[in-house]
Amino acid sequence: MTPSTDSFERAWVRLTARLREIHLLDAAQDLLAWDREVYMPARGIAQRAEALALLARLSHERFVAPALADELGTCHALADTLAPEDTRRDELRELARRHARRQKLPVSLVAEAAHVEAMAQSAWATARAANDFASFAPWLARVFELARAKAAAFGKPRDGELWDALVEDYEPGASARQLRALFGELVPRQSALVRRLVAAERRPDDAARRVAVPLAAQEALAREVASALGFDFERGRLDRSAHPFTSGTHADDVRITTRYSESDLFDALYSTIHEVGHGLYEQGLPAARAGMPAGQAASLGIHESQSRLWENHVGRSRGFWDWCAPRLRHHAGSRDARHDAVALARAAWRVQPSLIRVDADEATYDLHVAVRFSIEVELLEGRLPIDALPTRWNAAYREILGVEVQDDRRGCLQDVHWSAGLIGYFPTYTLGNLAAAQLMVAARRELGDLDSAFGRGEFRPLLEWLRRHIHAHGAVRSPQRLIRDATGAPLGTAAFLEHLESRLLPAHGLART
Amino acid sequence: MTPSTDSFERAWVRLTARLREIHLLDAAQDLLAWDREVYMPARGIAQRAEALALLARLSHERFVAPALADELGTCHALADTLAPEDTRRDELRELARRHARRQKLPVSLVAEAAHVEAMAQSAWATARAANDFASFAPWLARVFELARAKAAAFGKPRDGELWDALVEDYEPGASARQLRALFGELVPRQSALVRRLVAAERRPDDAARRVAVPLAAQEALAREVASALGFDFERGRLDRSAHPFTSGTHADDVRITTRYSESDLFDALYSTIHEVGHGLYEQGLPAARAGMPAGQAASLGIHESQSRLWENHVGRSRGFWDWCAPRLRHHAGSRDARHDAVALARAAWRVQPSLIRVDADEATYDLHVAVRFSIEVELLEGRLPIDALPTRWNAAYREILGVEVQDDRRGCLQDVHWSAGLIGYFPTYTLGNLAAAQLMVAARRELGDLDSAFGRGEFRPLLEWLRRHIHAHGAVRSPQRLIRDATGAPLGTAAFLEHLESRLLPAHGLART
Repeated sequence: MTPSTDSFERAWVRLTARLREIHLLDAAQDLLAWDREVYMPARGIAQRAEALALLARLSHERFVAPALADELGTCHALADTLAPEDTRRDELRELARRHARRQKLPVSLVAEAAHVEAMAQSAWATARAANDFASFAPWLARVFELARAKAAAFGKPRDGELWDALVEDYEPGASARQLRALFGELVPRQSALVRRLVAAERRPDDAARRVAVPLAAQEALAREVASALGFDFERGRLDRSAHPFTSGTHADDVRITTRYSESDLFDALYSTIHEVGHGLYEQGLPAARAGMPAGQAASLGIHESQSRLWENHVGRSRGFWDWCAPRLRHHAGSRDARHDAVALARAAWRVQPSLIRVDADEATYDLHVAVRFSIEVELLEGRLPIDALPTRWNAAYREILGVEVQDDRRGCLQDVHWSAGLIGYFPTYTLGNLAAAQLMVAARRELGDLDSAFGRGEFRPLLEWLRRHIHAHGAVRSPQRLIRDATGAPLGTAAFLEHLESRLLPAHGLART
Repeated sequence: MTPSTDSFERAWVRLTARLREIHLLDAAQDLLAWDREVYMPARGIAQRAEALALLARLSHERFVAPALADELGTCHALADTLAPEDTRRDELRELARRHARRQKLPVSLVAEAAHVEAMAQSAWATARAANDFASFAPWLARVFELARAKAAAFGKPRDGELWDALVEDYEPGASARQLRALFGELVPRQSALVRRLVAAERRPDDAARRVAVPLAAQEALAREVASALGFDFERGRLDRSAHPFTSGTHADDVRITTRYSESDLFDALYSTIHEVGHGLYEQGLPAARAGMPAGQAASLGIHESQSRLWENHVGRSRGFWDWCAPRLRHHAGSRDARHDAVALARAAWRVQPSLIRVDADEATYDLHVAVRFSIEVELLEGRLPIDALPTRWNAAYREILGVEVQDDRRGCLQDVHWSAGLIGYFPTYTLGNLAAAQLMVAARRELGDLDSAFGRGEFRPLLEWLRRHIHAHGAVRSPQRLIRDATGAPLGTAAFLEHLESRLLPAHGLART
């Protein structure tokens, strides 16, 4: 070891120790937030909010501290001495990117945003319950004002748009132009497909999902499915919460939640499989590198590619139901004829435009995302006044999904994201759908007939393929490079559209055109 | 407001803000520790230990920071301007006491102790499981070396003993001399009482607690009992853990745990009532003063006075069983003749010397504590070599409890305290028992026939009395003053011995002597 690489190693150890501390503070925050949704007694909320704010501040202070900038600088200066294949170069680049962004945000803006977002979320919850958009509108206006201030602080990228300055926090490298191009391909094809499917004479019915199944049986099934897909309960949990989510900043403690409805089997089952997908990604990140880019998820789009892959490509496959249907009958003690693999798979393939994104089927899901994306850009750029949102929303749903929005509760008030200040976030759902389909094509190329394997309960080969191509790399590779390296091509719409058409047209008794 | 009181107010606000931050860090630690015992997946332990150590360090750094000392000093200097009845004077005195103690501990000793205690606890768990005292002995030796180093750092109080320097963390104002005097009164009287009870011809049997009750029914009963006693589930939880405990640094989020045994109703029921007693105290502390002495428990002895009061004086009363027996039958769907109030109360009064402190009855419990106290002092002062502990322990059990210790697992390895570095802690259990009895005499003087009230499910008057006389004062008053103010006399043994004899002699068909 030369003296100069020795210096890099020492600087790297110091940098790692600082980031480790930030990671531990973030992990503590995560647990406090998880507990708030899952087990916290109702009256604990005020003290919990204060504790979360303190931990967030301590983490932020450490990340923007001059000492950390110094260590980063030292490592950078000495990185020339590293072997060319040393991925710590990539980690340094990723850390420098994040650090530069955080430095650009004035502390006063961070504090104001935290306050406004907390208030706006509470105003949103009240407004949604009361179907009262007007009471939420002033808060939404402030959220978008702050988003503009943040975007201005970050700075519009060269040749980019205002929105691009925000998406960077969720999907580094994405842009409004790229997303407009993707939606430009998707929306006409998905809309046309949906119109054909809905008009089909032999549409699948969804009676099989509506057979009442006791909650305890559903929970036992959810646990068996999660384990079979590879979720490690020695390193994770499954609990109940009002809205399903995944919490985990460390591969050895990953927590997913779901909710149960006695009259809708798919509610818990598919939300569990979705969160299992997120959870498998978290459990697959290199635990020893926790706190460093090598131990962190690459982006929200990549995260969503994992959840949507397990939910739709595995969980809605015929093979999955061949394996799962007998287990459902076992746990439910059911002899109902509708609890068979064919009926359950067909129920999972039913397409029906609806008002609520989170309940949408595979074919219509991205139409919901497209609506939010275009409206979000208009709101951010100030081209759409806040007060005009409901009218604009309802018109978009009529035009793109062909449904009439009856009230704002099931319209523009349905999602939490905007109230939480998550501007630039929504399209990561669609990026995830596209990536999932493209990953499945690549995995099948290597692993062969996965559907038969699923029918035998063999999910491990697919998980190991994803571990190798996605999970193991953490955020060392950019989202774009991860997909290119894993699938041999940049992200596109072809694999996803092919997936939808090849599964759903035959399921509706229709021929490919 | 004069200029100088205005300055006090401003200094007080600054001091409060600093202590608030420490409180929030401690509360986060509490939640992480609670989760570790209750819900954490097994493999999460390494990362959790690191997170807890970081939060402990951040809290400690803030408490010993010169800035906090300055604020304390400023407040002290201006406290003369306060009205005589202003209890912030007392809070300042209490803060100064704690601050002076913490300042005396070298950081290196704190870090070494944290490390040794973590390792010793793990070695203890392994040694206990394997009944292998020899493997634990070197760790125990190190724990006591560190305890001596801590005691030396704190300094022996004038006219006091080495042990007194340690008890101060758990029971300010207590001393080995005082405890030796108390045990000198208790042990002969309790031993004589136990000998009479065990030899009695009409000893109560405990068949009623052994009737199998399904765990779900026991849990439903535990919840109903906890609510009836006043535990507020909007501000607390009841979960399961291997060892029952209470967690709560804020009155609005207090968590108790218990464990269930199908073949022993009392295991869960009395551990629940015990933890409810701790929980009621925590929920009764002034929430708005969280982080300040006014919002904190006065001592472990006072804490234990609350748990033992509810467990023994309420939960083992005939009135309690008049109220509870029908509820037990309801939840258990039981028609067993042994599930009646008389049989259950008699089972709760059965006295039988045994090996395990946590399972001991009211009459023998303090004999266990007496053994630990005298041995602990000998170990601390180096008069008893570590290797001689099992022999000394077994001889003390033979002499004081009249039982033969078969193996160290059920002997000197049974309690976690010493391995966790809790030297100076054990006698607080007995102080709690004495205080509970004395408080009950005072409460009855004011409230009249409580046993009949319990029979009607009226527990609220007693709780409100405790709120008024104990909970509301937090740590503003010393433990000694709290008891004196609430009962009209300093802490003594008379009320407790009277309680034991008046309940247990008649229960065993014996006359008072």
